[in-house]
Amino acid sequence: MDATGLGEPQSFERVLSSMCTEPHPLARQAAERFLATNPGDPETYRTVAELETEVVERLGDVVGLDSPSGYVATGGTEANLQAVRAARNLSDTDAPNVVAPASAHFSFSKAADVLDVELRLVELDEDFRADPDAMRAATDTDTVLVVGVAGTTEYGRVDPIPDLGEVAADAGARLHVDAAWGGFLLPFTEWEWNFADAPVDTMTVDPHKHGMAAIPSGGFLAREEATLDALTVGTPYLESGTQASLTGTRSGAGVASAAAVLRELWPEGYRSEYERASDLAAWFAAELDGRGYDVVSPTLPLVSADVPEATFEALRERGWRISRTAADELRVVCMPHVEEGMLRSFLADLDDVESKA
Amino acid sequence: MDATGLGEPQSFERVLSSMCTEPHPLARQAAERFLATNPGDPETYRTVAELETEVVERLGDVVGLDSPSGYVATGGTEANLQAVRAARNLSDTDAPNVVAPASAHFSFSKAADVLDVELRLVELDEDFRADPDAMRAATDTDTVLVVGVAGTTEYGRVDPIPDLGEVAADAGARLHVDAAWGGFLLPFTEWEWNFADAPVDTMTVDPHKHGMAAIPSGGFLAREEATLDALTVGTPYLESGTQASLTGTRSGAGVASAAAVLRELWPEGYRSEYERASDLAAWFAAELDGRGYDVVSPTLPLVSADVPEATFEALRERGWRISRTAADELRVVCMPHVEEGMLRSFLADLDDVESKA
Repeated sequence: MDATGLGEPQSFERVLSSMCTEPHPLARQAAERFLATNPGDPETYRTVAELETEVVERLGDVVGLDSPSGYVATGGTEANLQAVRAARNLSDTDAPNVVAPASAHFSFSKAADVLDVELRLVELDEDFRADPDAMRAATDTDTVLVVGVAGTTEYGRVDPIPDLGEVAADAGARLHVDAAWGGFLLPFTEWEWNFADAPVDTMTVDPHKHGMAAIPSGGFLAREEATLDALTVGTPYLESGTQASLTGTRSGAGVASAAAVLRELWPEGYRSEYERASDLAAWFAAELDGRGYDVVSPTLPLVSADVPEATFEALRERGWRISRTAADELRVVCMPHVEEGMLRSFLADLDDVESKA
Repeated sequence: MDATGLGEPQSFERVLSSMCTEPHPLARQAAERFLATNPGDPETYRTVAELETEVVERLGDVVGLDSPSGYVATGGTEANLQAVRAARNLSDTDAPNVVAPASAHFSFSKAADVLDVELRLVELDEDFRADPDAMRAATDTDTVLVVGVAGTTEYGRVDPIPDLGEVAADAGARLHVDAAWGGFLLPFTEWEWNFADAPVDTMTVDPHKHGMAAIPSGGFLAREEATLDALTVGTPYLESGTQASLTGTRSGAGVASAAAVLRELWPEGYRSEYERASDLAAWFAAELDGRGYDVVSPTLPLVSADVPEATFEALRERGWRISRTAADELRVVCMPHVEEGMLRSFLADLDDVESKA
């Protein structure tokens, strides 16, 4: 079967730390079919270019935005960077700054370095959410962007996006929401997080996370076409003329897989997965709590718990792919490939390790 | 067969403009196997992380560099941007500029906007190559990077890299070579273009072009580890600690496909393809010349010729995917999927169009 001789790719049997997952079977098939296409050259690769238009339209449905502008990016890092870049390019300050909660993904630090803007990270409230008053205090006349996170990487928290919209408006800044992971879960909750709920200018929402598309399939969405215009450079020798994406050649596999899975799963398939993952996270949190660990109560299907360092390391040695929050808590993401049997097996190992400690 | 309902991906039967191609069968199989892996999270996805180390090592062989630093990027745009970013970050000027030939790929314009550096594009010599004297005149004490192109997008030209190395050294700047397309062709020529031939600091060399890997598979290589350090940000919540790539989550498909095809084809398979493509380009150029078109004599397998606008449009209407140089010449790239029968069919259409003009 394997003529490549490269060995086995990662099995997901013990992966609890990743926000990537096994793609949906239709997403996989679409990715394989469109492997050799390049939506970065839309006049040459027209079918995949049309699929990208469709994906952006459907992502608009996911995030409450009619007639979205945007494109399929490599992932959340590119989309977050583009949001900062658009805000910087559309401003007239020479010393732009971005105000974000301390929970913002490390891609904002990367964006700050790349784009040469100042990143002001603001302390969270006691429930690990953005604190609008503290964020407001961090803004000034050079603030070009206020960032909210809808589904934080470490605790799955949802920032108060409408309040952050007021902070941004009062500062004369734009509002960006990073829903890279949360975007395919939040439509089935009561949280206010999307373009319809608040004056959001740009959003990151990644099909290749809980959207079950294949890597690389990120989403960068903007309310106004002018945002894309602020990112555009000319493309001599391509017939299409201009390009707003950060990369040039892009993966048709990512685009096609997102198209296939969105057609198949939006909205009811994603609703089922949200409910399944949420129930699983609640159960797993209760199991950890029952063992006496200090558990951060999940709001989205991501569980953090204060497990001793030695236990964590012993579990890693048993092949569990787990990671830690900045506060050194164990962090488990209930992605589509994570099922109850897998977590029962993990808990059995946890109990075994602890019994020997 | 096609459960996705997305229709047919682009056939390469009439694609003459693209620098992408149908991947090698082993590259395709490797990409499909590693679709759901993420080398951006090397502690979780260890097999693909090891393959990336192997690919960088093998790319070092392609470009004449022992112990290369680098990584598999999304493509040439990211690699070029990272070269500019490293040069900017390692300099101490507040007003950095980059001196590049007018033939530099449009990704340098994108990089200049993203990174807020000045791009100085310098006129070419009469054979469309970088002019070292003119480049030297464009440098000053704020020049952080001199760029040479080894295989230009429009005419396949190879800049005088050793001379540009002197220009860079005299300006106290770094030297970057963009061999995104040319890197898998030039090892079989007499051109001086690589790390062994000149004091090159960084290079772009894309496996997903003439390397026959699957998209996205770009290469960013650096002589010194310090270059990567200048691009590094911390990655809290991942176990690996830091990240030098521009994107976060990355495609394991691109990495694995590059590993598979490099094992298979380097060097003799690539040599055969270079010879095949070069012979084909020479034949095609002669065919066009014989018809009275003004042909830019190819140095690498890329042919440009002065075909009238109306003829060009008529050929596009017949389904040929062709593109134009900035001077409006027809531009045909002899990629691995481009074979003599295909070009004979193109010439027959060309003759037919012209006979009706």
